[in-house]
Amino acid sequence: MTALAESTPELEFIFHPRSIAIAGVSAKEGAAFGGGGFVTSLQEIGFRGPIYLIHPTAPAIRGLKCYPRLTDIADDVDYVISSVPARFVPQLLEDCIAKNVKVLHLFTAGFTETGDAERAKMEQAVVARAREAGIRIIGPNCMGLYVPESRLAMMQGQIPEPGPVGMVSQSGMNAGEFVRYALPRGVRCSKVISFGNGSDLKAADFFEYLTDDPKTEIIVAYLEGIQDGPRLARAIRRAGATKPVAILKAGRTEAGSRAANSHTASLAGSLQVFDGLCKQAGALRVESLEELVDVAVTFQFVKRLKGPNVVVIGGGGGASVLAADDLAASGLQVPPLLPETQEALAKVTHEAGTSIRNPIDTTSLWEEEGFEASMRACVDAPNADVVLMHTAWGMGPSARAGDPYERMRKQAATLARLQKESGKPIVVAVREPTQPEGFEQTQEFVQICAREGIATYPSIARAARGLGRLLEWQRMHEA
Amino acid sequence: MTALAESTPELEFIFHPRSIAIAGVSAKEGAAFGGGGFVTSLQEIGFRGPIYLIHPTAPAIRGLKCYPRLTDIADDVDYVISSVPARFVPQLLEDCIAKNVKVLHLFTAGFTETGDAERAKMEQAVVARAREAGIRIIGPNCMGLYVPESRLAMMQGQIPEPGPVGMVSQSGMNAGEFVRYALPRGVRCSKVISFGNGSDLKAADFFEYLTDDPKTEIIVAYLEGIQDGPRLARAIRRAGATKPVAILKAGRTEAGSRAANSHTASLAGSLQVFDGLCKQAGALRVESLEELVDVAVTFQFVKRLKGPNVVVIGGGGGASVLAADDLAASGLQVPPLLPETQEALAKVTHEAGTSIRNPIDTTSLWEEEGFEASMRACVDAPNADVVLMHTAWGMGPSARAGDPYERMRKQAATLARLQKESGKPIVVAVREPTQPEGFEQTQEFVQICAREGIATYPSIARAARGLGRLLEWQRMHEA
Repeated sequence: MTALAESTPELEFIFHPRSIAIAGVSAKEGAAFGGGGFVTSLQEIGFRGPIYLIHPTAPAIRGLKCYPRLTDIADDVDYVISSVPARFVPQLLEDCIAKNVKVLHLFTAGFTETGDAERAKMEQAVVARAREAGIRIIGPNCMGLYVPESRLAMMQGQIPEPGPVGMVSQSGMNAGEFVRYALPRGVRCSKVISFGNGSDLKAADFFEYLTDDPKTEIIVAYLEGIQDGPRLARAIRRAGATKPVAILKAGRTEAGSRAANSHTASLAGSLQVFDGLCKQAGALRVESLEELVDVAVTFQFVKRLKGPNVVVIGGGGGASVLAADDLAASGLQVPPLLPETQEALAKVTHEAGTSIRNPIDTTSLWEEEGFEASMRACVDAPNADVVLMHTAWGMGPSARAGDPYERMRKQAATLARLQKESGKPIVVAVREPTQPEGFEQTQEFVQICAREGIATYPSIARAARGLGRLLEWQRMHEA
Repeated sequence: MTALAESTPELEFIFHPRSIAIAGVSAKEGAAFGGGGFVTSLQEIGFRGPIYLIHPTAPAIRGLKCYPRLTDIADDVDYVISSVPARFVPQLLEDCIAKNVKVLHLFTAGFTETGDAERAKMEQAVVARAREAGIRIIGPNCMGLYVPESRLAMMQGQIPEPGPVGMVSQSGMNAGEFVRYALPRGVRCSKVISFGNGSDLKAADFFEYLTDDPKTEIIVAYLEGIQDGPRLARAIRRAGATKPVAILKAGRTEAGSRAANSHTASLAGSLQVFDGLCKQAGALRVESLEELVDVAVTFQFVKRLKGPNVVVIGGGGGASVLAADDLAASGLQVPPLLPETQEALAKVTHEAGTSIRNPIDTTSLWEEEGFEASMRACVDAPNADVVLMHTAWGMGPSARAGDPYERMRKQAATLARLQKESGKPIVVAVREPTQPEGFEQTQEFVQICAREGIATYPSIARAARGLGRLLEWQRMHEA
């Protein structure tokens, strides 16, 4: 039996606690960070088991009964979240051992990452004692888990609907920001893990778990440091050979490395070495959190491109020209359309001044019939592998053409039908709004598109980059 | 007398029409693009002179009297906007000559950019005839002018408050998008010019004008093609030697060049040659419209950096690490703070786990006293040339800490005071909102900051890039 086969069932258990105790919840009304934040998030997502609070004096906080100590709870506790100061952690751990707790999530910070030798020693002692007792530790200095199917959330706004994207993140904030930006665009998650200092469970453990997890089809990661390099390299190689993997590696500069060390006590390692590992593993290394979200959207919705040829359609010549540049810079092609396609477009395009060559610059998208006919011409183009439509809501001439919500529902339904009938992916770039009305319309359109299986991006450049990275990934795996 | 001295007064006149006639306004209710769009924009910004509409049959449209022909108007007309089809333009031009009109703005498209030889010939004939008669043409195929001080607008949402940024743009859409994204962040414009095909007045004319315009302190441009290369090069070199200049050059790829040709009949030329010209001229070449806006914000608000050292402060370790990477990648430095600064920060920082080394990761910003004390420590840091604060509105723990609107007013006032007292620029990255409440708060905060003279950016990476480009510009000019 390999180490992997041994560790998998253990980690599976981590993601399905039946009961949770939280130590370190403030009795103050409205305390929203730390322990109290976890109460809010777990209640909001609807955690199904009991939530016990540990508080030295308060009888109840926010309607939940408090216990002076963990050992005062009569029933079993699977999972403990620690928000107490670091100096109280050793005693809390002893109580966890007494209660036969399986997982201790240390939100508590103030260990090795402080640079203080005493505190580093304390962290090591805690981990050693937990190991001895068979308790696994997530953290310290992390936000823990978002697991929709288990109704576990690390922050507010995290929804119970599960999906194919698994995330490993050394930073709780970046895990939260990934989820916050990805959810409205339709990305759904299997497990999102913030593991902080990674004292016990490390990136390699979670890569291994997500590789074997049948509910995870796509793996994204935010890493600051390299712990146990050879093992992590093996885990990333196996993940990359099994599923699409994209990694945002922080500490790519000297200043970033120093910040990573202050944040999660990480040693960033050489970016060149990490880049080589990604190439070897067939994993994408991305440059920003935005790109990580865009790549997740692309893997989940677009899945595969038959080739590099993009047909671009939208209103606005300047946007068309920049689109062509952005696509070409991302390794895609914008081929001139064949005469048959141009003829089909000419039939529904009003002005001679608009271009129907590709990119297509047309106002026909602003009308219901023109929309369907123009989009159909695009997906029917023999030299189109993917269609990129760009648009905006709540502004410009189209803003005054009837009820926008009715129009967006019809548009998304048309896009979904054409995508299905043609077998060619359609993606949409929705320019960012600058007015509240435009913001609400944009959010609604993006969510409708997501439900209809259409990938959206907040700019043409980001759509181009997302598609380009998918193509790059395919080339690594189909060569 | 040089050609420049001759052309300057003539171009000054272009920007101050006393009366406008618009040909080609649809009689249909709600027609919002083309001629009708200009009516809406001019009325919204409050154009002070008469607006005459030319319509063959309608007696009045939207409360404005219509005239069958331009020559039917009794009073003087300085400026004519043409939205009639291309084939009617020669007759309209004859009427302009008869009425002694000074400027003809051809929104009308369908000329050289169609690739049709007949239509190209027609464009040449129109320009030749206009020159002969002493009429200057803006366009064809363009949105024309946004001149706040003259209450001229090319699109809705363009405000009458003027400012230091002048823009030359071959694309109306990109001019409009620049203004749409730049205004909420406090950028104010002197003149924004969309000139399309540039048949008569070309980029070089407008660069020359803006260089000499005392109301323009910063010049930004969106160019697709190079017309009259040697003259444009001279104009950009003179502009670059006189004022900060940033140029987004489209057609930087083969696909983009082809699109530029379809759009404005432009020949894009070699990017390498253009790059060389920018370096020689001390002008920045930017890669995207977003970057053009960010650079304008930076030139207008930050103006100058004393050096490359940035102190970064905000809540969230993951953001800190990425910030350090982004800043270093943009040519800036994130030096460790001196003991005295760390001591000042330690006094107001709650948890040992947060970092006070730089980047500073602290929750102290969420409280009123902590905010001022922390920010003061940053600007007081002897090794800080600029302070970058990052934040978000309508989300996270701080969202529940009292009235956000009161808090943001206090924060912005504190930032403005510290910036003024210290003489060190403070810039703020506000993470993009994903909820309506957050959107409204973010917009409000950004606008308050702008009024207080504080530069804002929608992400840390974009703030880093903006600052980095400013430093690059300084090095070109201070070497």
